[in-house]
Amino acid sequence: MMKQRSIDLNSDLGESFGAYTIGLDNEILEVVTSANIACGFHAGDYNVMGKTVKMAKEKQVGVGAHPGFPDLIGFGRRAIQVDPDEVFHLTAYQIGALKAFCNIHEVPMQHVKPHGALFNMAAKDREIAEAIAKATAQVDEQLILFGSSGSELIRAGKKYGLKTASEVFADRTYQSDGSLTARTEKNAMITEVEKAIEQVRSMVFEGKVTSVDGEEVQVEADTICVHGDGQHALLFAKELRQRLEQEGIRMKRVGE
Amino acid sequence: MMKQRSIDLNSDLGESFGAYTIGLDNEILEVVTSANIACGFHAGDYNVMGKTVKMAKEKQVGVGAHPGFPDLIGFGRRAIQVDPDEVFHLTAYQIGALKAFCNIHEVPMQHVKPHGALFNMAAKDREIAEAIAKATAQVDEQLILFGSSGSELIRAGKKYGLKTASEVFADRTYQSDGSLTARTEKNAMITEVEKAIEQVRSMVFEGKVTSVDGEEVQVEADTICVHGDGQHALLFAKELRQRLEQEGIRMKRVGE
Amino acid sequence: MMKQRSIDLNSDLGESFGAYTIGLDNEILEVVTSANIACGFHAGDYNVMGKTVKMAKEKQVGVGAHPGFPDLIGFGRRAIQVDPDEVFHLTAYQIGALKAFCNIHEVPMQHVKPHGALFNMAAKDREIAEAIAKATAQVDEQLILFGSSGSELIRAGKKYGLKTASEVFADRTYQSDGSLTARTEKNAMITEVEKAIEQVRSMVFEGKVTSVDGEEVQVEADTICVHGDGQHALLFAKELRQRLEQEGIRMKRVGE
Amino acid sequence: MMKQRSIDLNSDLGESFGAYTIGLDNEILEVVTSANIACGFHAGDYNVMGKTVKMAKEKQVGVGAHPGFPDLIGFGRRAIQVDPDEVFHLTAYQIGALKAFCNIHEVPMQHVKPHGALFNMAAKDREIAEAIAKATAQVDEQLILFGSSGSELIRAGKKYGLKTASEVFADRTYQSDGSLTARTEKNAMITEVEKAIEQVRSMVFEGKVTSVDGEEVQVEADTICVHGDGQHALLFAKELRQRLEQEGIRMKRVGE
Repeated sequence: MMKQRSIDLNSDLGESFGAYTIGLDNEILEVVTSANIACGFHAGDYNVMGKTVKMAKEKQVGVGAHPGFPDLIGFGRRAIQVDPDEVFHLTAYQIGALKAFCNIHEVPMQHVKPHGALFNMAAKDREIAEAIAKATAQVDEQLILFGSSGSELIRAGKKYGLKTASEVFADRTYQSDGSLTARTEKNAMITEVEKAIEQVRSMVFEGKVTSVDGEEVQVEADTICVHGDGQHALLFAKELRQRLEQEGIRMKRVGE
Repeated sequence: MMKQRSIDLNSDLGESFGAYTIGLDNEILEVVTSANIACGFHAGDYNVMGKTVKMAKEKQVGVGAHPGFPDLIGFGRRAIQVDPDEVFHLTAYQIGALKAFCNIHEVPMQHVKPHGALFNMAAKDREIAEAIAKATAQVDEQLILFGSSGSELIRAGKKYGLKTASEVFADRTYQSDGSLTARTEKNAMITEVEKAIEQVRSMVFEGKVTSVDGEEVQVEADTICVHGDGQHALLFAKELRQRLEQEGIRMKRVGE
Repeated sequence: MMKQRSIDLNSDLGESFGAYTIGLDNEILEVVTSANIACGFHAGDYNVMGKTVKMAKEKQVGVGAHPGFPDLIGFGRRAIQVDPDEVFHLTAYQIGALKAFCNIHEVPMQHVKPHGALFNMAAKDREIAEAIAKATAQVDEQLILFGSSGSELIRAGKKYGLKTASEVFADRTYQSDGSLTARTEKNAMITEVEKAIEQVRSMVFEGKVTSVDGEEVQVEADTICVHGDGQHALLFAKELRQRLEQEGIRMKRVGE
Repeated sequence: MMKQRSIDLNSDLGESFGAYTIGLDNEILEVVTSANIACGFHAGDYNVMGKTVKMAKEKQVGVGAHPGFPDLIGFGRRAIQVDPDEVFHLTAYQIGALKAFCNIHEVPMQHVKPHGALFNMAAKDREIAEAIAKATAQVDEQLILFGSSGSELIRAGKKYGLKTASEVFADRTYQSDGSLTARTEKNAMITEVEKAIEQVRSMVFEGKVTSVDGEEVQVEADTICVHGDGQHALLFAKELRQRLEQEGIRMKRVGE
């Protein structure tokens, strides 16, 4: 079965804060089609947000909010024991804050993708996932919700009437239940570009991925997450894009 | 000359934070017509913001953003040496964050009033004033900008095409140049309700106020600032409203 | 068997922050013998810390550091997924910060008691408990470490050569394994003062408590935690102290 | 007149925060004799502080607290309108916090140098200067207070019985009143290494500097501030040290 011939590439951007700089934003914006912009809680600040929205617009990259936990020192990577009502409110706040800069730069907001620990919790915890989806839908029903392929977040997005984009990884291996292999495992990462390309091809054209146990697992592949936080990550992203285009897969932002 | 017969009453609300409670929000919302809601920088948090927008809507009180400096420990009352570009971005961020809760509760945002030290700086510093006005206009050109009567902020609002609301005080005395008497002066406050009523009557019906030096000063009086941070302040606000209504002045929110 | 005839009463203090006030610190300092003073992470600030150390010294109440998670909006009550090394550093930092005010007011620091979620995690998680004990011992080996009776934290304190104080509750019920009944359970709280007194008497004189299932459980009872965050809590603490004194139990701070 | 033949070199260190890295700390620690370690307010965090104290000890570099305003987003560089009492408390808090890590790594704290806007305010504002000196003396009277040569801070340190170290710059020009030329002026910086060396030689051996107007100005030169926030700054610091040593000036930390 021949599936789609296009895919979105997304990356986390706008993570600098005050005097602190992280990420090769200018370069990675040449590669990706969607930007998940930090909203000042786990990373980013109001100045960086304004500048990043402007850059994304200029490079015709889709602008998305990347809400995270209020935990700058932990970069939003640590699980915090929160109730769904709190998640609803912190998600809404951050989406709204980024929308201000979309208004200023006259660019529609395309999507919402939760960050780090919030993203991981939303993959498995139905209440957390629904709080995020509800906040997104109530702030702006046109927003596309990004979540892991097969996650609670994707299901929650559909429940609240949102368009969704299922995210896959080019450089992470999968378990037979469709989940990512934990980073603590030896075989979690795919380091050979050829293997990564092959995995993406299979996901895009066949809608499936081969798990570490050799089983075929169905996946939705609307967008691939790449990183821009170092020269190595940037080069991988560039090569991935180039190779996928050679395979006849068009890079297209999900909101196009 | 007979001037207007209506006025707006505004108060700062939603200043609680996490486990910390400040303000008799429920009670003061029965008295005022416009609520300046803290946006999480100098006070307030995302949970409080959602709840306060909901309460304001239910009581048909106009919802406004109350952006302040990122200075929770100083409650936004301390001047910080910032450049206009930073003020532009922090104002936009906070307006956007509150707008998310307006979307959620399906109530239009009515106005923007800067808080504390930012409000005071915007009264006299043209560049700061214009940064606030520009951010407000670019996020949402329908917003009404609140500023001190005769301030740079009111002028800046008009420059950027915004409706403005000039704020006066019932319980503060004025200098001959139209500025408020500094709180450090003995005669800064009006403690007798009768005198406060008389001052408001003069401002509303005659468009003028008598300064501490006995001179008549022209003022615009679109909205009066009252406080809800204690029983005494609340009682003063209630009595002020009642007496003004007896004088034939209707309480009407500026966005009506 | 007749055991000790004295006990310490401890309470959380210095939780105000900036313009925000929490707690009847002045009143509860008349009742307790040890004060756990917030250190600016989950509550408290540098101004409040200085003032609270001064007040505690004047009332001859033992001064202790009350380190918590860096989570002001959650008041340190939410579990955060941290590794022991982080706990070690955040505990040391907060103890040091409070010690500065002990130096200024020329009063020795008596103890350390972790706050909220950190306290709960330290009761059960050996690595977290040891990180706290190690930080305490390395900053000042004279400090007494407070932990739940029978907790990992008490064991860790002993491992690192610290004096420890086992904490019990007058108004919480116990399970047969010696743990507190979760607050979500109906029978978690003891609301009758008589029952609370009886429980403390049994813990102080007999070294045991009767669990909700009727079993006798051994406990160490060096200090009782009381609250000062409202009139009701304050009255309970006062009555508890008065009644215990009538029973011949002397209130004595652990460091005496 | 032949004056001293040794000088201290100090630099700001430990400014990284969470996932954010700033500064070539490992390299600059090979060059300087005193480290001003950020204390978590304007930069730095508890993990970074512990690690930096450890590194400084290993390289026999004097450990100092570098307290700043609670303004991470502004990196402590923006003046905040604070009263002396607040400065007293925030200084004490930060010194105490760093002392915890000195205890842990068994290294005495050598000095205190305020950061950024607080340093600048303390140079000219007597009350702010005295608040810092008093906090330093009351937390630990053995601490050496760093301030600009001829500043209020140096005077305040002496008033409170502290040893002081007067700081000069190798790469900044001076006005005839002994103050630094503002960075906004064209001739503020000395870019030629030869000129910088000549300026330091004059300050060390003669106790004077030639102002931009050609006048001789008396200076105390106990320590020179160098930077480690980039390759260029690091190279300048290395060359400066090497050349000064060739001139027969020994690098010696102030607390030696």
